[in-house]
Amino acid sequence: MIAFKKIVICGVGLIGGSVALALRKAGYSGRVVGLERNSDVLVRAHKLGILDDAGSSLGETFKDADLLMLAVPVAQTAKVLESFLPYLPDNIVITDTGSTKSDVVAMARNVLGDRVARFVPAHPIAGSESNGPEAAFATLFEGKKTVIAQLPENSETDVAQVAALWETCGAIIHYLTPAGHDRVFATVSHLPHLLAYGLVDYVANHPLSELFFQYAASGFRDFTRIAESSPEMWRDISLANRTHLLEGLDAYMEELFRMRALLADSNGAGLDAIFANARQARMNWRCAIESVETGNKNK
Amino acid sequence: MIAFKKIVICGVGLIGGSVALALRKAGYSGRVVGLERNSDVLVRAHKLGILDDAGSSLGETFKDADLLMLAVPVAQTAKVLESFLPYLPDNIVITDTGSTKSDVVAMARNVLGDRVARFVPAHPIAGSESNGPEAAFATLFEGKKTVIAQLPENSETDVAQVAALWETCGAIIHYLTPAGHDRVFATVSHLPHLLAYGLVDYVANHPLSELFFQYAASGFRDFTRIAESSPEMWRDISLANRTHLLEGLDAYMEELFRMRALLADSNGAGLDAIFANARQARMNWRCAIESVETGNKNK
Repeated sequence: MIAFKKIVICGVGLIGGSVALALRKAGYSGRVVGLERNSDVLVRAHKLGILDDAGSSLGETFKDADLLMLAVPVAQTAKVLESFLPYLPDNIVITDTGSTKSDVVAMARNVLGDRVARFVPAHPIAGSESNGPEAAFATLFEGKKTVIAQLPENSETDVAQVAALWETCGAIIHYLTPAGHDRVFATVSHLPHLLAYGLVDYVANHPLSELFFQYAASGFRDFTRIAESSPEMWRDISLANRTHLLEGLDAYMEELFRMRALLADSNGAGLDAIFANARQARMNWRCAIESVETGNKNK
Repeated sequence: MIAFKKIVICGVGLIGGSVALALRKAGYSGRVVGLERNSDVLVRAHKLGILDDAGSSLGETFKDADLLMLAVPVAQTAKVLESFLPYLPDNIVITDTGSTKSDVVAMARNVLGDRVARFVPAHPIAGSESNGPEAAFATLFEGKKTVIAQLPENSETDVAQVAALWETCGAIIHYLTPAGHDRVFATVSHLPHLLAYGLVDYVANHPLSELFFQYAASGFRDFTRIAESSPEMWRDISLANRTHLLEGLDAYMEELFRMRALLADSNGAGLDAIFANARQARMNWRCAIESVETGNKNK
């Protein structure tokens, strides 16, 4: 059950658009209004049937709204909140969908002041290398985690209502602190993106680039899929989570140095030990994921 | 049309098993006999219907054979060829499926002497993180490249006959020198495997490993798929292609150092440029691949 009667989604791309579609699919009876910096995107989202209203003035858009969801690149959080602030109804709850949390919380705290108590930070762990409203689909969040990075000031009611919205979209709710969230995702998401971008950039700039790409096959394809993600979004995430990402990158480069030394020494047993440990860990992880997914399907 | 009347495949796992199945699917009327260091694997391959014969003595196996295909981890090439040498008919053609070529050629040259003229090195660019005969399937090579790394001593007839066999399996034939082959695959295949193994090993050994794996999602999944590949096979490939792989690893680490410096300086424009270049190159590559695949399907 969703308590909100009128939801304003700022940013109706993959994430914001998919929330709107998921709510509609779940039979949500309230209104969903969209906001976009780029009016062309808003028109496309409206044509795609994602939005009830394409939004007019900010005053009109926020009238009677009881939830504002930010689904914009994280670096825009402050600017967007500042521009909305004069129009926000007193009792509106605000949430976000950003891939980093500490910086978003800092910006929200800075702009909102005491009203940050109504800001419930969240991050749906779902996505795609595609973006824009055309990439949105109603089942994007089904069976996926949404992390709520609750603030000490948040009321239990606001947190429960944001959680209920995500559950309506099919998500499973997890709770982490903003800093804990950022450390985890630096390792399992932001670092792999950086590494994939780096590999493709390296290959693309190589004098033999054309030859290399000609023979790249399925291993390369899967390894580099995320290098097609939005550069703007990942630049913002990298900068926003800079400290944790540098920590992860340094630790990974130490691992590469160790592997390089083993390879330079032709130490087959040493390489084998790393490869075998990685393989076993990857299989354990995949089997755990698959058993949860099978469990969900059998419900 | 395949000229060979009796083919001995040494190693009936994913690659060797799939060749046998592809030949059968194509209506190949000759005999396909399997050899395995592990007799249990041979029995499984026979039960799976992959082989006509499960092989008896080496003398019996090689009687009247006119092609020997090695589909074993590359480091075993010398040992396997040595053990077969006394039993090889005078006019048998030998080929392999190894992921590295310079080392395989060196071993073949060493063991076979002048008979290396009948050794046609090859590498089907197809695979999976799964292995063993159970992973084999008849369409593994369809529409995929097979690289023939022809030797100066090879006769055009032998090369054409090995090429015809792979074309019967559905492959598209490409030609590279052994060294050219190894340089290309160090970059687009061997390096990504090393990087993926390294990331999973790093995450698995981290004190927060359990928490990290809990939040790993689709980006991590695709990036690390190849870290489930056979440790033995990839240890051998890494060692066999050590020089080119070290070269690629060093260049990639320089790229990571550059990205690290940009991140440490909060240089968003610099990161954006790398991300955008990578994204464009990845999209161009994918579109080229997809248009070839669509073209093949429409034939």
